[in-house]
Amino acid sequence: MNIFYLTLFPEMYEGILSSSILKRANDKGIVSYKTINFRDYANNKHNQVDDYPYGGGAGMVLKPEPVYEAFESLHLENARVLLMCPSGRPFDQQFAEELSTEENIVFINGHYEGYDERIRNLATDEVSIGDYVLTGGEIASMAMTDAIVRLIPGVIQQESYENDSFSTGMLEHPHYTRPREYRGMKVPDVLLSGDHKKIEEWREEESLKRTKERRPDLIKNKK
Amino acid sequence: MNIFYLTLFPEMYEGILSSSILKRANDKGIVSYKTINFRDYANNKHNQVDDYPYGGGAGMVLKPEPVYEAFESLHLENARVLLMCPSGRPFDQQFAEELSTEENIVFINGHYEGYDERIRNLATDEVSIGDYVLTGGEIASMAMTDAIVRLIPGVIQQESYENDSFSTGMLEHPHYTRPREYRGMKVPDVLLSGDHKKIEEWREEESLKRTKERRPDLIKNKK
Repeated sequence: MNIFYLTLFPEMYEGILSSSILKRANDKGIVSYKTINFRDYANNKHNQVDDYPYGGGAGMVLKPEPVYEAFESLHLENARVLLMCPSGRPFDQQFAEELSTEENIVFINGHYEGYDERIRNLATDEVSIGDYVLTGGEIASMAMTDAIVRLIPGVIQQESYENDSFSTGMLEHPHYTRPREYRGMKVPDVLLSGDHKKIEEWREEESLKRTKERRPDLIKNKK
Repeated sequence: MNIFYLTLFPEMYEGILSSSILKRANDKGIVSYKTINFRDYANNKHNQVDDYPYGGGAGMVLKPEPVYEAFESLHLENARVLLMCPSGRPFDQQFAEELSTEENIVFINGHYEGYDERIRNLATDEVSIGDYVLTGGEIASMAMTDAIVRLIPGVIQQESYENDSFSTGMLEHPHYTRPREYRGMKVPDVLLSGDHKKIEEWREEESLKRTKERRPDLIKNKK
């Protein structure tokens, strides 16, 4: 998979893309990352990528030309082009699974301001990672990259994600490791019993209990 | 505001915390950021922070001691201690507003694996940024940091966020800037009319239309 980030802040990506599983996926040749600064496609003497909104109002608006031209510089025939914006389709685990099979993904990241509406025509999808306002699309695109890349075969061990929350439609059961007692807090006896059937039952019960308490909507939406 | 990140990957934060408004908020003395590698508090000869799960199963579990001791090294009297996990309270704009008035925020970031259940007792809140699985809490804590810090008075101009999506309970109306026509796509006439009342009406209609089409749940939930 090739992932491209159209951004005014390529330096924001450095720490993330060179750490942990995103680095490993790149080292293994499974994923490549490229940032493109669309200010390089401003084509005006002040390298201006934004301008005042028609009709007035606070804030600036991202111009269409630099984004279109930066995108075209990639010469991609097939790509999912994701516009990061609060009004987009809410990103979730199912969407991550869908995107994990793509060959090329392009993230268009605004920063500080609104997109000129015509930029939306360039996108195959408009996406939001949650109901909160971020200054730009960059961090959102990194969260999505992480969620997507870890699902590509060969990046992490399969059993590591098969029991993840949302993959099963339920929240995970509690985990415990050593020590058996820490500051008066003890590991439940059942986990020390060696009775695997009981342990499995306890985990299923706890998983259901936690989901009911915290996210009853997940049970309601379960297929 | 002082923000602390308990993490095994402090290098992931560098690009983000030194860019854009997060950098500016720090330069202005409004926010300070500090990463703490809790591996420094492992207190065993292999600097091991995780161990096998009691009761068996795939994956490792983050031990309680390094996280408790790293937290205590901060000597905080009052703090919101946020445990990043998929089963947490879904982060949203209202939660961001609530957190933007705190003096100290501590993010506890697991990575690759589950938390020993006893770590949850250290947290004032368990938080999730969305219904997707991330490898670690780091990127999630950066998204939250951005959403929170931009709401602190003095960080950005107030009019920049008053009309943001979710702040008003509605998605934003379309924006247009120059050129008037780009690749055959034209700016709507009303925005060029100079009639401010009409422009205002058009924007309200478009905002409502977009919200109805894309996120009817926001209208339903509106106070």
